[in-house]
Amino acid sequence: MATGNITIKELAKELNLSTAAVSKALRDSHEISAATKERVMAVAEKLNYVPNPYAGSLRHRKSKTIAVVLPEVADSFFSLAINGIESVAIEKGYHVLLYLTHESILKEEAIFKDLASGRVDGVLLSISSETDGIDHIRSLFNRNMPIVFFDRTCEEIETVKITTNDYESGYKAAEHLIKCGCKRVAFFSISNSLQINNKRRQGCLQACRDHDVEEGFSHLLLSNRASEVNYQLIKAEMLKPDRPDGIVASVEKFTTDIYLICRELGLGIPADVKVVSFSNLASVSILDPALTTITQPAFEMGELASSILIKSIELKSFALKNENRVIPSTLTVRASTVGK
Amino acid sequence: MATGNITIKELAKELNLSTAAVSKALRDSHEISAATKERVMAVAEKLNYVPNPYAGSLRHRKSKTIAVVLPEVADSFFSLAINGIESVAIEKGYHVLLYLTHESILKEEAIFKDLASGRVDGVLLSISSETDGIDHIRSLFNRNMPIVFFDRTCEEIETVKITTNDYESGYKAAEHLIKCGCKRVAFFSISNSLQINNKRRQGCLQACRDHDVEEGFSHLLLSNRASEVNYQLIKAEMLKPDRPDGIVASVEKFTTDIYLICRELGLGIPADVKVVSFSNLASVSILDPALTTITQPAFEMGELASSILIKSIELKSFALKNENRVIPSTLTVRASTVGK
Repeated sequence: MATGNITIKELAKELNLSTAAVSKALRDSHEISAATKERVMAVAEKLNYVPNPYAGSLRHRKSKTIAVVLPEVADSFFSLAINGIESVAIEKGYHVLLYLTHESILKEEAIFKDLASGRVDGVLLSISSETDGIDHIRSLFNRNMPIVFFDRTCEEIETVKITTNDYESGYKAAEHLIKCGCKRVAFFSISNSLQINNKRRQGCLQACRDHDVEEGFSHLLLSNRASEVNYQLIKAEMLKPDRPDGIVASVEKFTTDIYLICRELGLGIPADVKVVSFSNLASVSILDPALTTITQPAFEMGELASSILIKSIELKSFALKNENRVIPSTLTVRASTVGK
Repeated sequence: MATGNITIKELAKELNLSTAAVSKALRDSHEISAATKERVMAVAEKLNYVPNPYAGSLRHRKSKTIAVVLPEVADSFFSLAINGIESVAIEKGYHVLLYLTHESILKEEAIFKDLASGRVDGVLLSISSETDGIDHIRSLFNRNMPIVFFDRTCEEIETVKITTNDYESGYKAAEHLIKCGCKRVAFFSISNSLQINNKRRQGCLQACRDHDVEEGFSHLLLSNRASEVNYQLIKAEMLKPDRPDGIVASVEKFTTDIYLICRELGLGIPADVKVVSFSNLASVSILDPALTTITQPAFEMGELASSILIKSIELKSFALKNENRVIPSTLTVRASTVGK
């Protein structure tokens, strides 16, 4: 390659640092010491490295297309988020390539490898529940592909992340259950690695601590795919002598199983078990009983993610900062926690 | 500064070969010697060359991309159909561009105009509820763009149409209501022009004729967008002295309104009004009361549509015939028609 065209990888090798560290230093991250930053800048200058995120040729291959990579579409949160994303994209004259990971890190990695071809100008991403490594994302990000996260984020990647207030929502949900009389609050989730799940779980746990029912808190990890497995796992949980008397479901698809199992076991909702779920389904108010929900601002999150990504593609002066943009969720109390 | 975004021209210069020769080597052409191919691959790998998909498509006139044009995604039928479409596309190495019309013919026309640019190799289409003219579809179809319809079709376009047995499903739904004692069956739909709605309505009507309750049959046309308007329209209908005692809802989103209005008016489901809806929602069994449904084979319809379209793109010998491929739906009886 011509001199003055050196890559961040080559620069990192020269400096005997990781690519991630060099990237952070160039972005003036607080995680990197001033001395290291100075050394990185000096070598970058000497080797004529151009730390302009828009200098790459990806930038000039305007496809007017963005990729949306997400776990699934048959979920009210994601389908509403797509509506938000699409409404902005169409207005700005962009096309939307849809990729589904079906909660598989292998599929996610394959998609990211493919996106390196420059087919798109930017990527909106909500990671799979299996994603614990980030090399595939880092690799594309280091090629100056603009990436914006929504909902399920990777904190390690220094870009804009659109989320809801997951910790507070978990806290609010558990606190509501406790105030309704629950002593044994369980958090049902699909992942131990997803940050949004961890935040929601921590919020639940803190609410239990603050209200002196920490002993009763439990976390049930369910499958991200097979619903038959989940039926058995939830049933086993509800058959324990110290079964939960309050459930916070982080994924709406658990609700049907929880309701059917409680019926099968003769447990009344909310008399014996109170249930709160994260959900955006319109039909929650006609469930038996109507479901208390944490409703995420799905459409707005999609809209904001899309508009920030497209702005970063179109405006040279607009760089994607390493920041969290939070749009709060709403607790709506219905009969599954307060009914007869 | 992007790594690996060198052009084929730069790669050729580095190799001291013609661009054509490099291109042939990368495509494993028999015109290039094994030794040269090896040398090209080695340098391409070293410089992290990634082929530009659009350059490729100009040469092969193949973008390996299909467009999916549909009314909305926040509907269990369409979201499951997308899963089916995507599962085939990814297996065959195709990308999916998603376009939503939001039930607007103007948006649909704009999308079709744009698709004429050759961005995609083929189109999967489920038309908007407003679509009564077909010039925009005909125009793209006449440019030899392969188009396959699913669910909401245009009979005038001579291509493959994947549908469910809409007439029979309408018939079965109404007959079930009549057998449960209904005398005044109403069909709720969003369109007078969609063929699937017409077939379902005709099926309902024929069942009423065959069972001598034709007098009681009615059709309520609702808005394809504003749910507040629909709430008022349905409420007005249910306040009539000769209100329906059985409802066939052609769109699942009506269910929430129907249930809430019946509650507001003190009408019991199924005692006073029996309800059947077309729906693919997992939660229908935990509604109050559980909903009797016509379940369409959404995933299978998407899968079949996608595999036929891609076959027609890939195989010159495989022409899209003017034919209807029908996958039957299932009536599942629950408490909204037969409960206490």
